[in-house]
Amino acid sequence: MFTDDDRELLDSPAFAKLATLMPDGSPQNTVMWFRRDGNTLRMIAPAASQKAQNLVRDPRVAVVIDALHNGYRYIDIRGSAEVRHDDTAARNELRQIVARYIDERADKYVESLSADPRVLIVIHPGRLRSHHGAPPGTS
Amino acid sequence: MFTDDDRELLDSPAFAKLATLMPDGSPQNTVMWFRRDGNTLRMIAPAASQKAQNLVRDPRVAVVIDALHNGYRYIDIRGSAEVRHDDTAARNELRQIVARYIDERADKYVESLSADPRVLIVIHPGRLRSHHGAPPGTS
Repeated sequence: MFTDDDRELLDSPAFAKLATLMPDGSPQNTVMWFRRDGNTLRMIAPAASQKAQNLVRDPRVAVVIDALHNGYRYIDIRGSAEVRHDDTAARNELRQIVARYIDERADKYVESLSADPRVLIVIHPGRLRSHHGAPPGTS
Repeated sequence: MFTDDDRELLDSPAFAKLATLMPDGSPQNTVMWFRRDGNTLRMIAPAASQKAQNLVRDPRVAVVIDALHNGYRYIDIRGSAEVRHDDTAARNELRQIVARYIDERADKYVESLSADPRVLIVIHPGRLRSHHGAPPGTS
């Protein structure tokens, strides 16, 4: 589903903006590390976090991933999130995710985390839009 | 309500990620130019756009604004959006918003837009969180 061009952005150390739904149906929007795995995106969160609880209650998400140094290049995705309550799998995945951002410090970071259980969030894109903007007037 | 520190980020030409609610209650997340005006954020959209229609139906929003070259510095806001159907006011506001991003090309850009009516979106923050992160292991 992702094109080569999408993968180029998704495999860069960009940040995901993850919109979930609060208990009252209002949106929440948070910044997340992530990793692309095939045609899914993977993220980690504490099981007790608001966003994880939101996703367990309602799996519908909208995600923006924008290029680090070009706000006019971004992907927006609407889809659903699967939440896996497997702390070991989550920490193993987190090591891979974190390595994208802080490389050799990833292991140390993951080992420094509290024992509070983490969940693995797997996002399955439904609709995807890929934006290649440029500041108006420059193209 | 915004601190000096918040204003420093909000007055930079950062991009807003605006989460709204689709007719079925699922989230939408889009990238927006914006301008801070006092304790509100202002954005413009075509009246016929999905996001504008979403906001008219349900004003609840969640907005992330992240610093241009530091993904670990961001503000997330939950609040409500007021939609003003005033095309003239929207275009005047747009001129000010666009000038933050493309400066001297703003007038030309605004004049080049289609005649499709625009709405002025005024976001009133409810809860705000200001994040001053750093890559783990560097602090």
